[in-house]
Amino acid sequence: MGTPPPNDSRAAAEALDRSDPLAAFRDEFLIGEPAVVYFDGNSLGRPPARVAAALREVAQRGWGERLIRSWTEGWMDLPLALGDRIGALLGAAPGQVAVADSTTVCFYKAASAALDARPGRTEIVTDPGNFPTDRYVLESLAGARGLRLRWLEPADPTHGPSAQELAGVVGEQTALVTFTHVDYRSAAILDMAAITAVAHAAGALTVWDLSHSVGAVGVALDDARADLAVGCTYKYLCGGPGSPAFIYVRGERQDELRQPVWGWLGRRDPFAMEPGYEPTEGIRAFLSGTPPILALHALEPGLELVTRAGIERIRAKGIALTELAIVLADAWLAEYGASVASPRDGALRGAHVALAHPDAEALCAGLAGRGVLADYRAPDVVRVGLSPLTTAFAEVWDGLDALRRLLAEGAGGG
Amino acid sequence: MGTPPPNDSRAAAEALDRSDPLAAFRDEFLIGEPAVVYFDGNSLGRPPARVAAALREVAQRGWGERLIRSWTEGWMDLPLALGDRIGALLGAAPGQVAVADSTTVCFYKAASAALDARPGRTEIVTDPGNFPTDRYVLESLAGARGLRLRWLEPADPTHGPSAQELAGVVGEQTALVTFTHVDYRSAAILDMAAITAVAHAAGALTVWDLSHSVGAVGVALDDARADLAVGCTYKYLCGGPGSPAFIYVRGERQDELRQPVWGWLGRRDPFAMEPGYEPTEGIRAFLSGTPPILALHALEPGLELVTRAGIERIRAKGIALTELAIVLADAWLAEYGASVASPRDGALRGAHVALAHPDAEALCAGLAGRGVLADYRAPDVVRVGLSPLTTAFAEVWDGLDALRRLLAEGAGGG
Repeated sequence: MGTPPPNDSRAAAEALDRSDPLAAFRDEFLIGEPAVVYFDGNSLGRPPARVAAALREVAQRGWGERLIRSWTEGWMDLPLALGDRIGALLGAAPGQVAVADSTTVCFYKAASAALDARPGRTEIVTDPGNFPTDRYVLESLAGARGLRLRWLEPADPTHGPSAQELAGVVGEQTALVTFTHVDYRSAAILDMAAITAVAHAAGALTVWDLSHSVGAVGVALDDARADLAVGCTYKYLCGGPGSPAFIYVRGERQDELRQPVWGWLGRRDPFAMEPGYEPTEGIRAFLSGTPPILALHALEPGLELVTRAGIERIRAKGIALTELAIVLADAWLAEYGASVASPRDGALRGAHVALAHPDAEALCAGLAGRGVLADYRAPDVVRVGLSPLTTAFAEVWDGLDALRRLLAEGAGGG
Repeated sequence: MGTPPPNDSRAAAEALDRSDPLAAFRDEFLIGEPAVVYFDGNSLGRPPARVAAALREVAQRGWGERLIRSWTEGWMDLPLALGDRIGALLGAAPGQVAVADSTTVCFYKAASAALDARPGRTEIVTDPGNFPTDRYVLESLAGARGLRLRWLEPADPTHGPSAQELAGVVGEQTALVTFTHVDYRSAAILDMAAITAVAHAAGALTVWDLSHSVGAVGVALDDARADLAVGCTYKYLCGGPGSPAFIYVRGERQDELRQPVWGWLGRRDPFAMEPGYEPTEGIRAFLSGTPPILALHALEPGLELVTRAGIERIRAKGIALTELAIVLADAWLAEYGASVASPRDGALRGAHVALAHPDAEALCAGLAGRGVLADYRAPDVVRVGLSPLTTAFAEVWDGLDALRRLLAEGAGGG
């Protein structure tokens, strides 16, 4: 993807688009008119064009014509069938991923299951920069169980906690180690295999949050020996606002780990409606309530596009897009006090770039007024999310150019 | 709705359809061709015709064009806005109902919140005929907390537990009393106000499951002084397969009760992403993860139809439909060993009828082969669900006629 090398001309960005093997995928999505510069595909991915038809089809046929019969004609298997396809993007063999509930609920189940499997241990380790909902759930679980939340503050916030740092805090008191694989602000990619190995050496279990990883970077859950993981599907998988999350439970741990929300759909033979909960076998035991069938159908088109594009090509384009954003930020924005707060090594960076500036919030508002949507992330980050299937290189140029103009006009405030 | 009085001729059923003030509502739903006799609208309601267009609209405009901006242009308020509209069907003033998660997860949150508010008490009271997912969640919560599940076996299973029976088992050890308001098998309606009063007199809290009530029978949550309630929206509200559930928390209890899944969307000022969970005010504190926006949009059309039809008219038709089913069952099916296992007093019966027969499972399969969809409910019930907005009186006649023929042919097995 590399010729001509990125420089700060729009022509160079356009040339990158012409040689982009994934460029045609943008046509598979609904792009409103006039098209905004969308630096938020890592927060809410754009809709695949096929979504509305997929929803009409399930409303008319599966729901309208087949009615209740659809439950045994595919719906019951959908959370696991889609789970296997998500697993394929995450280095997870089939039978280990289910799609269900919100990311928060999945994280609650996963962390609770891990803690229950380590009775007598007293500590949960995470970092204070972890995504809020993860931190809050851990607080709740720790409070209910009388455990201590041990906050690992990384020496280098841009790169996040390292395995070496973790080794300094874990021990026989550690029940659970949990981090987000790709940081929601910095985009730092943690070393999943090394961190998991340190946790395991201490006898702890791991829960990984893959919300900013899935569909953007390669993940090797099985190879890294991860125990549990969760993630959302409305970012790079383009499943739609509030689309259901997924939960991964390592196959060999599935008998040992039990989630706390004992619903009928995680029970053996649920329609027997018998007394007494007995978990069914495999990953299905991590389901609780009735699966959200319409939302699962809305998720399928985005998952299909990511699968077809291939995670290696997506990853390569993600690195190239974020490289371009960094080149332009260095060339144009540094003089106005904006700095790159993401790893400069593409191998250590997800598909977004954090630009730090004291007036980040006002800058995001100013950008929105010019048709450039980026996320403000407290306290000082303009987050430039560059979802590989829907973002053009020229779009990166246009958005950074708008930010440059805004700063040149003093719009940040100072 | 009463002339001519029900008898066992199809002409009489057709006359009831002609005088049905809600008959035109059937045209607001997608009815597949050839139309099946659908006795399962109490399990999965038929799709409102407007659903596909509503989903296309949100995919194209809210998601596709407005993108991330939609979160502040209405999406954040949707769980509470729809909650208020559901509350209006349940006798709940605004600000007490939120739509979120599955029914199982809502029930877990509600029951957990109630138990946390009654520390030191050791017992949960429910009935062994309660819906399975409720029983399993209670088992999980009781096990995690070392509490005892006390099963109240009603003397009259057709009518379910009474307030008097409850008074015999509650005391200062009782933390939580929880029942399903309309029984999923018998359709018995419990006396919510009397049972709640007995629970309160013992110092316990109540959680009501309204899954078979909402959109079918009148409920008076505020007047009955109910503490918490949950329910699903894919039955009489026709929200679609696996549509999100709702949770009611009595206003004056909202400060005292805290749900256990502390997600970012239940926190004060969630986008500050600050350390430390502090619940936000009101019913919003019972949210956890990102709301399922597409599914909420799919729910709106059914909710609108139920609201427009009016719960009083729906209730009246539900009684008339089930009366007809009982008249026909008595006239035609008793001689083959099928008996009515629902209350005969319409005031005590929801919108379905349980027909008990030892070969219920085989009969349901035989009916399905003749285009009549009914639910088998273990061990011996053919459940005839008569969703008032989508079921015609002639349809009741046709379905019961099919069952009569099946039994006459000895198809039940014997």
